[in-house]
Amino acid sequence: MQPVYVAGVGMTKFGRDPRTLAEIFREAATSALRASELDSVDALYIGVMNPEEFTGDSNIASLIADAVALTGIPALRIETASSAGAAALMAGFQAIASGYYHRVMILAGEKMTHLSTSATTRVLAGVIDKRERQCGATMPALAAMITQKYRQQARLSEARLGNMLCGVALKNHANGVRNPFAQFQRAISREAYFESKFVATPLRLYDCAPITDGAAAVVLTSEKTDVCLPGIGQGTGTLSLQDRQVFTSFPSTKIAAARAYRMADIAPQNIDFAEVHDAFTPFEIISTEDLGFFPAGKGGEAVLEGKTAVDGPLPINPSGGLKARGHPVGGSGLAQVIDVVKTLRGEGAVRREFKRGLAQSTGGLATNNFVTIAQRTDAPTVQNLWAGAGTANGAHHTAVAPTSNQQAEEGVIETFTLVYVTPDGFLSPLALALIRTPGGALLMAQGEDDTPLKIGQEVSLRRMDGISLFRVKGQIRKVQDTLMKWFRRKPVSVKGPAKEAAK
Amino acid sequence: MQPVYVAGVGMTKFGRDPRTLAEIFREAATSALRASELDSVDALYIGVMNPEEFTGDSNIASLIADAVALTGIPALRIETASSAGAAALMAGFQAIASGYYHRVMILAGEKMTHLSTSATTRVLAGVIDKRERQCGATMPALAAMITQKYRQQARLSEARLGNMLCGVALKNHANGVRNPFAQFQRAISREAYFESKFVATPLRLYDCAPITDGAAAVVLTSEKTDVCLPGIGQGTGTLSLQDRQVFTSFPSTKIAAARAYRMADIAPQNIDFAEVHDAFTPFEIISTEDLGFFPAGKGGEAVLEGKTAVDGPLPINPSGGLKARGHPVGGSGLAQVIDVVKTLRGEGAVRREFKRGLAQSTGGLATNNFVTIAQRTDAPTVQNLWAGAGTANGAHHTAVAPTSNQQAEEGVIETFTLVYVTPDGFLSPLALALIRTPGGALLMAQGEDDTPLKIGQEVSLRRMDGISLFRVKGQIRKVQDTLMKWFRRKPVSVKGPAKEAAK
Repeated sequence: MQPVYVAGVGMTKFGRDPRTLAEIFREAATSALRASELDSVDALYIGVMNPEEFTGDSNIASLIADAVALTGIPALRIETASSAGAAALMAGFQAIASGYYHRVMILAGEKMTHLSTSATTRVLAGVIDKRERQCGATMPALAAMITQKYRQQARLSEARLGNMLCGVALKNHANGVRNPFAQFQRAISREAYFESKFVATPLRLYDCAPITDGAAAVVLTSEKTDVCLPGIGQGTGTLSLQDRQVFTSFPSTKIAAARAYRMADIAPQNIDFAEVHDAFTPFEIISTEDLGFFPAGKGGEAVLEGKTAVDGPLPINPSGGLKARGHPVGGSGLAQVIDVVKTLRGEGAVRREFKRGLAQSTGGLATNNFVTIAQRTDAPTVQNLWAGAGTANGAHHTAVAPTSNQQAEEGVIETFTLVYVTPDGFLSPLALALIRTPGGALLMAQGEDDTPLKIGQEVSLRRMDGISLFRVKGQIRKVQDTLMKWFRRKPVSVKGPAKEAAK
Repeated sequence: MQPVYVAGVGMTKFGRDPRTLAEIFREAATSALRASELDSVDALYIGVMNPEEFTGDSNIASLIADAVALTGIPALRIETASSAGAAALMAGFQAIASGYYHRVMILAGEKMTHLSTSATTRVLAGVIDKRERQCGATMPALAAMITQKYRQQARLSEARLGNMLCGVALKNHANGVRNPFAQFQRAISREAYFESKFVATPLRLYDCAPITDGAAAVVLTSEKTDVCLPGIGQGTGTLSLQDRQVFTSFPSTKIAAARAYRMADIAPQNIDFAEVHDAFTPFEIISTEDLGFFPAGKGGEAVLEGKTAVDGPLPINPSGGLKARGHPVGGSGLAQVIDVVKTLRGEGAVRREFKRGLAQSTGGLATNNFVTIAQRTDAPTVQNLWAGAGTANGAHHTAVAPTSNQQAEEGVIETFTLVYVTPDGFLSPLALALIRTPGGALLMAQGEDDTPLKIGQEVSLRRMDGISLFRVKGQIRKVQDTLMKWFRRKPVSVKGPAKEAAK
């Protein structure tokens, strides 16, 4: 395989940008070409998530080729939801590695701030499984439900979890101060964090990346430069939350990381710093665990102990992350790579000498993730410290066919959230929960009243207009106990799905 | 570069399909895996044009990975408007050629028939330049304007052009009869063609590919099989019609063909048969010229002489083409490749022994085109008969910056059409013309009355609600004469743009 090197990079100042998507892309492209001392490239690989609905543009590859004055040049649009920028890098990487092209430009970005928050929330929620979306589930709502589950599994008090999430937010905002391209270049206080409103419990406004306009551009080449890409990997994950086996870890990241580490022949311990997808603060914590930096359930402690600080042993998001840099959805995966490259070149926000950095990008609710490793070409070969890297979760995790839960009449709360920022057409606050039904399957449902919710509560279920509604029965039980109770019932009293499960 | 081979292929019966997009994809994927005797692949490359607006699905790569029960496997969505299927093949080709993957599945399709014709027309029109779209321009309308210009440049009478377009329609419908996967499997008569309604003059219903649901799947592998892909190329073209230099030929096809021929080290004369993008019958004629099969302006005669018939020297669209096979927009570029492969394997609609076939796919209004060459692995090396292949139009055609035409008050009709099938919000029939303004630039405008139109007519222009409106002055002149007249004016009487042009 032909080695792949990074030539020039360029990006716009992220934030609210009055220009059109094409004009924003043009600025990023122009600056990457200038930095590469090139007039043109062999092809364009364009990552953008949803210009169809954000700006009403389709045929975006041709539109952008025109906009950057490279009409004629092949241009492909690549999309994997919020990791589209990393996806475009993957496709461009393969094009150079094959020898088909010698120089390509990866371009990625999004234009979002011109829409209302509820309209943007609706477009972003399009990445969610249709059944869950119809319940009013948003990206923050599902991230919140994962966070509740994480807290339970890591045995953290609400206050302890809050401190950890606050720790991520404070660190990334503080890092953003040094990044001139970041949307937010001001630190926030602990008080400001805890005073910020809930978007979906337990996630506050400061736990969520902002809505952003911006574009990033990277020129890849087969000619040797100072930075190469020795490893890159991708993995997908189950679209719906209710069909998942695991909630507090993302198999898609593990698959991508295993491939990238194996390809670069390194271990997590050989990574000096990383940019990870902190669209929600808990996702930074989960990602650092999935990448093998910290054991499962220990990523939050690492933040509180300063291990991931800019002057710590493993800086995470020294650029400010999606949290402070901003999150133009299609562009973030490529902006991360730019920040890794800049840091390696000594041009980043952190002025420490690093040999090797990693970028991790998350598409949708961790349904399409990427890991890219960049290193200084003069970095010495390392001794692979982590034999496990090559044997991390394989791609084919066997899905247990969930039992149909159409007729379920009761269940137990597996995880839940109160959504305060709802999509168009849903009242706030909206109680959402993932309900474990007697058949063992999971079901996304809307709460019918304002009873306080807890994991393990028993609920009754009913269907209305194709949406499942739940009402708390009052009693809290361990999920396992309740399932056992159901399984002990005589088959005659068990309806439909439970019957099959009881066999 | 690692050679790339075709393993199994599969597709659904094109037409109106009541299933969801995911279910349609699943059938195609399953049949290609079965034909390849495989349970899985290393990655999925998914071509689909606009599920966001057709079916309300985004994050489609993850959704399809789930749907085909390959969750975990990397999945990229590739999009270049109506050539998305060919684009996905290109990205998958590069992945195999690089050695990064050894077996990938290309999956491409679209689900469209559940929407009304006017809603579908609106979504499809999203690929057009925004300014032209706001005038009410549709894909058939722009194709019609190109056809008017082709007729003028090839010096064809209306009747002669009509016979040629009819010839394409009759041939492709007759070919479709032998293709069990085609949407239309019945021949049409000359009478039926000429009785069919105008969609946009001079294009009739039978000149336009239908609205279709369907999916196609191809497994590419680095292991030797009976069919290889020795050449593949891509090129882009100017999005808007009003910014183009050439109307009756598509530079994007020429760029793609030059690369594919050079890579395969063959000439157009070495191609035994081809599937070309006949979304509109005149595009088949133009494509066969751009591919170097026939001289410019002679493609229509070749049809009438039977040269492109299934038993002729160079069968074009022996599968029935988009015209009869159907046109699920994101899927057509891959379905073409499947039909080429089947024909090479002796499993296609035509039972002739061929060594080498070509597929040409068009994205948008020829803004993102692909050429893929497939050949039997046992085909002997050829003597390249066409030295010109390597030197066809280069990628960087220099764009002459058009003079702003904001204030133009008059102009001359460069080409025009009457649109009978209009998008949502536009009354039928709608007169559209491309007007050459005194500054030399082109401008898309709506007719204000029902005066019969001709190329060369002088018109007056005015702006209303951001749209240009024209009214015929009555006199027909050669465009050149009128420009000369304008240029001879004294600068003092020349306003804004014309002034600059006159310098």
